[in-house]
Order: sequence, then structure tokens, then C-alpha cells
Amino acid sequence: METQKQKAMNRKQLAEQIFTKQSFLCVGLDTDIKKIPRHLRDEEDAIFLFNKAIIDATAPYCVAYKPNLAFYECMGTEGLAAFERTVGYLKKFYPEQFIIADAKRGDIGNTSAMYARTFFETYDVDALTVAPYMGEDSVQPFLDYQGKWVILLALTSNKGSHDFQLTADNEGQRLFEKVISKSQEWGTDENMMFVVGATQGEMFRDIRRVAPNHFLLVPGIGAQGGSLQDVCRYGMIKDCGLLVNSSRGIIYAGSEEDFAEIAAQRAKELQQQMATELAKIR
Amino acid sequence: METQKQKAMNRKQLAEQIFTKQSFLCVGLDTDIKKIPRHLRDEEDAIFLFNKAIIDATAPYCVAYKPNLAFYECMGTEGLAAFERTVGYLKKFYPEQFIIADAKRGDIGNTSAMYARTFFETYDVDALTVAPYMGEDSVQPFLDYQGKWVILLALTSNKGSHDFQLTADNEGQRLFEKVISKSQEWGTDENMMFVVGATQGEMFRDIRRVAPNHFLLVPGIGAQGGSLQDVCRYGMIKDCGLLVNSSRGIIYAGSEEDFAEIAAQRAKELQQQMATELAKIR
Repeated sequence: METQKQKAMNRKQLAEQIFTKQSFLCVGLDTDIKKIPRHLRDEEDAIFLFNKAIIDATAPYCVAYKPNLAFYECMGTEGLAAFERTVGYLKKFYPEQFIIADAKRGDIGNTSAMYARTFFETYDVDALTVAPYMGEDSVQPFLDYQGKWVILLALTSNKGSHDFQLTADNEGQRLFEKVISKSQEWGTDENMMFVVGATQGEMFRDIRRVAPNHFLLVPGIGAQGGSLQDVCRYGMIKDCGLLVNSSRGIIYAGSEEDFAEIAAQRAKELQQQMATELAKIR
Repeated sequence: METQKQKAMNRKQLAEQIFTKQSFLCVGLDTDIKKIPRHLRDEEDAIFLFNKAIIDATAPYCVAYKPNLAFYECMGTEGLAAFERTVGYLKKFYPEQFIIADAKRGDIGNTSAMYARTFFETYDVDALTVAPYMGEDSVQPFLDYQGKWVILLALTSNKGSHDFQLTADNEGQRLFEKVISKSQEWGTDENMMFVVGATQGEMFRDIRRVAPNHFLLVPGIGAQGGSLQDVCRYGMIKDCGLLVNSSRGIIYAGSEEDFAEIAAQRAKELQQQMATELAKIR
């Protein structure tokens, strides 16, 4: 990857992008070689070429990209190289885009520090998703990076979120609420966001009780069935405070040679719905 | 990596190795380029060469190796190649060793399936550590692999384990207990183990109440301060049921040209203590 000075995007800059573009869309680059258009699959750098086409087409309609590492690791060193090239491309040609590595990492302190070095120095992304199960010292090494963001799993979009995240303690506080309140002793709303699934609907009201000012990263629109309107009704705050992600619903909307145009169309539709929602707060 | 038929090691085979070698030691390959002996650092494939030397020296005294992915990812594609070569080397020359990829993954179902493909097909390790926060559908894709093992985080060895894992619900069940009991609806003691830190001492008694028959992967001996004797007193069962890991205490015991001999010496000391413990159950 080219050497560049470390990229950082603060909350104010992110909010400015959102109001300028009238969008709080994050495009999930969950790029699976088995799902990209047939004509690209045999290209040498198929994953990167697909991402590049998706980025060039959707960039006007979104403020963030979120590659999920699972999809790149799955292809071994070649996949990781495609991830690196994708991040490098974004930083060079779209420096105003917020880059989230969705990796859900978290380990004992000295090991989390290694992950932090990987994502915040080697790849130099803006934000990393982190799993909270191991507590403070597993999260702190990521927060130690100036200008970088931790996005902590709180209430996820999947069915399994009910297994542990909704368990109430003997004072009635549920695990996701405990994660959100406890972690505010470690980070601030200038370096920490929370993952809250769009499928959780009215739960956003409860989230805003414990995290009135934090940005939320919201997956689960589209393929997973969440409602953008519900998310905004209960979750939007004065500087928006939301990044709503769509992956499969955008990047695999088309499967022929015009896949990028179709992806752009889907992104634009979401952007227009988002503009309507933003109009309600400004 | 060379194409070989998929490796699988069942519980009976693992226990046989333990009693044959009189050891339940797992050597953690947390290989950091900044910590390996100076004379190796400038070698082209330094990480692999270091691992190879450690493996050749310690293999008689252990039954498992556990590379932590953080240390390999940190070096980008080059690090991942070293991880691949290390796993390939173990499979070719030490097929009786149980290989654990310590990656603490976990994501929504279709994404966990990608991670499962990576570790159980591409790298073909025996076991993967998995974070439980996202619940059943984040764990199931790993359990779907015949002959492979999920090692679920339960009660970790770090200070942050107190932040959420010890929280009791309104019926007095603590989160780590809920993870252990709930997950037994998903997997069995033939395809699932739990991570329990050696630093948790008497808590092993509580663990054995909810997981009387599962193997436990136990980090935290050595650098982190856990006691092998306490772990055995409260955690050992009739086929041992323990894999006790040491990483830094073995692999960085020496820092000169004789580092591998010193590592072997440390591994042998632990093996001898383990033989004493095993004598108590047979």
C-alpha cells in the first residue's frame, strides 16, 4: 500500500459530509467471488475490480464504506491484497469517505494492540468494529489511537442477538445496555460508536436512553428486513448520529455487466429516502 | 498451501495424545517480529523460521499449537503467508498435533460461514476460537463442519472479563454460565470446548458445574499469572478435559541463538508438572 499520512475523520467532518451529500448511507463491501458478475470472475484481481466499480458508481450517494474482513480473509493472501487495494483506492480517490473495517475483533490487551496496529496503522482505516465480550482492556488499545474510531457491538441485527444481548441483570439492565453504558467510561462520542441492528425497530428508543449522543452504525436494512423509517424515527439525533449500512441490497442488486449502474440506482434510492429523513431535523 | 485431505481429530484421539505424551500443553505461537531473536529478524521468512524452530523443539512436550491470528494479520499478506506455512508445516510433520487458530471470530450467519470456510477449509485447522456475543446463528456455521471444533469464549483470563462475563441475570446466572449452558443446545462435548482463563482459579469449580464433560482451553498460565495446580484441582476430569496454553512464557523464554532449546526446556518443565497432575486421575 502506498505510504500516506494517517487518515483521520472526526465527528464534525463526518456530520458535514452527511449534510452535504444528504446521505448517511454506508455501503457494505461484502464481496464474495461466488456472487460477483460472471464476466468479472476470471479477472486476475476480480474482487478489487468489482469493488472499484461499485465505489465509483455509488460514491456520490454514500458517506462510508464498510468492507467485512470475513469476505477477504476467506480468499487467503490474495483476498487480503484485494482488501488493501480497496482501502488504498478509497483513500486516494475518495478521501472524504469514512472507511470502516468490519472485523469484530477483541482479545486480551497485548493482542488487541496487535489488531489495532493492523487496522489503524497498516491499513489505516477510520474505524473498526470490536466485540465487547472481553471488556475494557480488550477495547482500550483501539481507543488509544488518536483520530480513530471503535464501533462496539451492542445490539446486533441477527436472530442470535436474543441469546445473550437481551439478558437482564438483577437490576433490570440488559447486556446491550450495560455494554453501552459501561463502555462510556472508556471512550467518548468522539471516538466510539455502537452497532445497533435496523431489525431492532423500537429498541432504538431504549438505545437513545443510554447513548443519547453517540453515532450508531446500523446494519440490517434490505436483505435482513429492517426499516429505515423506524430507525430514523427512534434513532436520529441533531447531527444525524446514524450510519445506515446496506451490503447485499446494493452490491448484488445487479448480476450482469450493468451491475455498477444498478448498484448506483439502489444507493441513490436509499440516499433520497435519507434526504427526506434529514429534512426533518434541519 | 499443499492440498491434503481435511484433517480432523476427535476427542478420543486428543485424549490418547494427552496420556501418551503425559502432557496437555498447548504452545501459543504469538509470534511478534519485534520479540523474536535478533539474528532471525532479517531473514526473509523470519516468522515462519522462528515458528519452525519452536515447533521442532517443543513438539515432544505438547499436544497442541495455537497461533493467534492477530500476530500474523499485523504483518499483512506476508504475515498471513507465515501463518499458512506454519499450519502446513504442522500438518505435514506433526499430524498428531491439534491445531487451534485463535482468532475469536463471530458475525451474522452468512459472514460466520465465510470465516468457517477460511479456517476449516482454506487453512484446515482443527479448531477455532469464537466469540459468543452474537449468539446461536453466529456460532452454528462453525459447528456445521464435521470433525472440527469450536472453542467458545466463556470466562477469559484478562481483567476485562469482570466487566460483562460475571454479570448475573435476575435468576443469579452469570453471563459466562449462560454462554456455557445455552451453547450446549448448539454443540456437544465432541465439537465444542470453552475458553476459561487460568487466572480464574476456583471459578473452575463453577465451570465444571455447568460443563462437567467439556474440554476447556486454558490460557493465562505464566505471563498472566495463573496456577496450573489450581486449574487441575478444580478443572480436570477423567479424560483430562484440559488444554493449558502458554505462549510468551515458552516462546520468548530465550532471546539468543539458543532460544529454541530454552523454549523446549520451559515446555518440558510444564509437561513434567502436567504428568504429576495426570497421575492423579489414572
